[in-house]
Amino acid sequence: MRFEVLAVDPASGLRAGLLHTAHGSVPTPTFMPVGTLGTVKSLTPVDVRATGAQIVLGNSYHLALQPGVATVERLGGLHNFMRWDGPILTDSGGFQVFSLDQLRQVSEAGVTFASHLDGAPTFLSPECVVDAQERLGADLIMPLDQCLGADATWAETADALERTQRWWQRSLLAQRRSDQALFSLIQGGLFEDLRRGAARAAATEPAPGFAIGGLSVGEPKDVTAALLRATLDELPADRPRYLMGVGHPQDLVTYARLGVDLFDCVLPTRLGRNGTVWCDLQGQRLSLSRRALLGHRGPIVPDCLCMACTEWSIGSLAALYQHRDPLAYRLASMHNLTILGRVAQDLRRAVLYTAGKTSMHRVALRNTRAC
Amino acid sequence: MRFEVLAVDPASGLRAGLLHTAHGSVPTPTFMPVGTLGTVKSLTPVDVRATGAQIVLGNSYHLALQPGVATVERLGGLHNFMRWDGPILTDSGGFQVFSLDQLRQVSEAGVTFASHLDGAPTFLSPECVVDAQERLGADLIMPLDQCLGADATWAETADALERTQRWWQRSLLAQRRSDQALFSLIQGGLFEDLRRGAARAAATEPAPGFAIGGLSVGEPKDVTAALLRATLDELPADRPRYLMGVGHPQDLVTYARLGVDLFDCVLPTRLGRNGTVWCDLQGQRLSLSRRALLGHRGPIVPDCLCMACTEWSIGSLAALYQHRDPLAYRLASMHNLTILGRVAQDLRRAVLYTAGKTSMHRVALRNTRAC
Repeated sequence: MRFEVLAVDPASGLRAGLLHTAHGSVPTPTFMPVGTLGTVKSLTPVDVRATGAQIVLGNSYHLALQPGVATVERLGGLHNFMRWDGPILTDSGGFQVFSLDQLRQVSEAGVTFASHLDGAPTFLSPECVVDAQERLGADLIMPLDQCLGADATWAETADALERTQRWWQRSLLAQRRSDQALFSLIQGGLFEDLRRGAARAAATEPAPGFAIGGLSVGEPKDVTAALLRATLDELPADRPRYLMGVGHPQDLVTYARLGVDLFDCVLPTRLGRNGTVWCDLQGQRLSLSRRALLGHRGPIVPDCLCMACTEWSIGSLAALYQHRDPLAYRLASMHNLTILGRVAQDLRRAVLYTAGKTSMHRVALRNTRAC
Repeated sequence: MRFEVLAVDPASGLRAGLLHTAHGSVPTPTFMPVGTLGTVKSLTPVDVRATGAQIVLGNSYHLALQPGVATVERLGGLHNFMRWDGPILTDSGGFQVFSLDQLRQVSEAGVTFASHLDGAPTFLSPECVVDAQERLGADLIMPLDQCLGADATWAETADALERTQRWWQRSLLAQRRSDQALFSLIQGGLFEDLRRGAARAAATEPAPGFAIGGLSVGEPKDVTAALLRATLDELPADRPRYLMGVGHPQDLVTYARLGVDLFDCVLPTRLGRNGTVWCDLQGQRLSLSRRALLGHRGPIVPDCLCMACTEWSIGSLAALYQHRDPLAYRLASMHNLTILGRVAQDLRRAVLYTAGKTSMHRVALRNTRAC
């Protein structure tokens, strides 16, 4: 993996970059749709690409339980299993295990938890998490981290942070493949001094990129922004920064302007499957369950280029959703992902344009060379 | 509407035809996927076309309840609402109302029933059924008929048949649009003399085509075939014959060889949504819910050209289905429809080939001219 920063906005921290992987290059900032179990739910890879997405995320926790790492291996690895030949990022499962709440037990060795599927006791260590991700075969992989709730004390957070840092060292030692980028994962809860210290420590590591976890977990947005700013302050500019679990159009703008390059979140597709579509670039919501929409002949967003907006009226989409046609989930998911793709593209073009770079040809050429 | 018979197999009754409508021409025999509420569930029109289907069916009963005929009109009519610019057939609702069972009351005026959605009392007459279908705007439309169960006596069946025939006369009188083909609908239950009489009467009518209802409702297949043969014997050869509610690959072969041109059924898409795919042209079933399929790297049918078979392994499809990804319903539905499309195409090509016709170019040219 190689990362290029093409331009930085001096007025904010907004960057335009290119992330080169063995499966192609990704212009940043970018949003990564979440393909929990190997697909972005209800979408084909062609659908996903049509939204402008160029990298997708898989959850190694979910994949390990269902259909199992061995099955994915048998089917030719994650790229083959997902039918996605572009870059893939897998997460470590730390956050998923954390969200199981009562079902888990954390020790220095790792995390024991009951599977959300059948309650079977399962153990995750930093080593086996790296092993699973190496066998899955994503381009970017994440180390196991210990997550905490928003109500954790300073001492609890400091403890968890130190454990996450020790786990990171074990993850590094466990890594066997040299063709995957194992990111350093920065925690520190809602405490600025811990965040800053964690980032400063990570900056000295040979990590190819940085994942920032444990933010946007319910705290006010200005707190998120302040903690993020403190974290990014300490990170080297030449490596990609990935803010985990953020995917609202307005949040993308706010945090990309602080210097974040990569985002992921289930929000756009989960909203889509629940019939909620964003009707502008600010992420204003519209529910397709409203009866009053049935007669509406216009598209959700007039200049949106997604299949839902170019081919279907709001009225038709509402009718589809109201009789629970799976096509509605697909179209609404594609629309929401297209909105995020558009926001990311606008941000990127703005900073390249401001920097006087003729972005389009330059990027296209570099992209071609890198693939 | 205009119908051409291009070739007939002298050894069976198999015909190759072309059905010309204002929205394009359809090579027959053909299977019509069912788009109950305006979509073939989980598929876009592009998906439907990719299966080889060239005409689709909408249920006027379902559309009238949800989203309502007025809403479809406001959204530009059924073609616009469905985003389907090819031919459409709508049924009358007679069979749907019949399947509501206890909820209905039949009189000479029409049928009163409780909506399956909210129990609201609803009335269907031959006239309002034609009116609704004229407002929806399909190319082929059906008159209201009185359906009976397989246990109906001769006298009950004769009564229902006569009422269906009187309703047909009222339907003809109610028709205002001249650009829709109102088929004559032949009933007669499981009684050969009634079937034959009904067909003989229909043959004298100015109907542009014939729909055959009330068959394949649970009776043995040789009974269906005998009754169908009796019906088709009495019908003129120059008009299309539509066998309602039949959609198994083997049934398509059997009944097309008796001289049926059009078929419809929810079977392929309902099976698909339940994770059952046909794994050969005989309609052998395979359930994607089987855990043992997870490691299987091959396609469902090696030489099937559908998206499921060309892009996905059985293992990936099984994984998709087993975690309830709506994409599985889409892919399985497309596969099953493609199998039926292939069966219909094979039948057609066989009879044209046998008749010494260079079907492909001839049909393509005619098709172009007709559009």
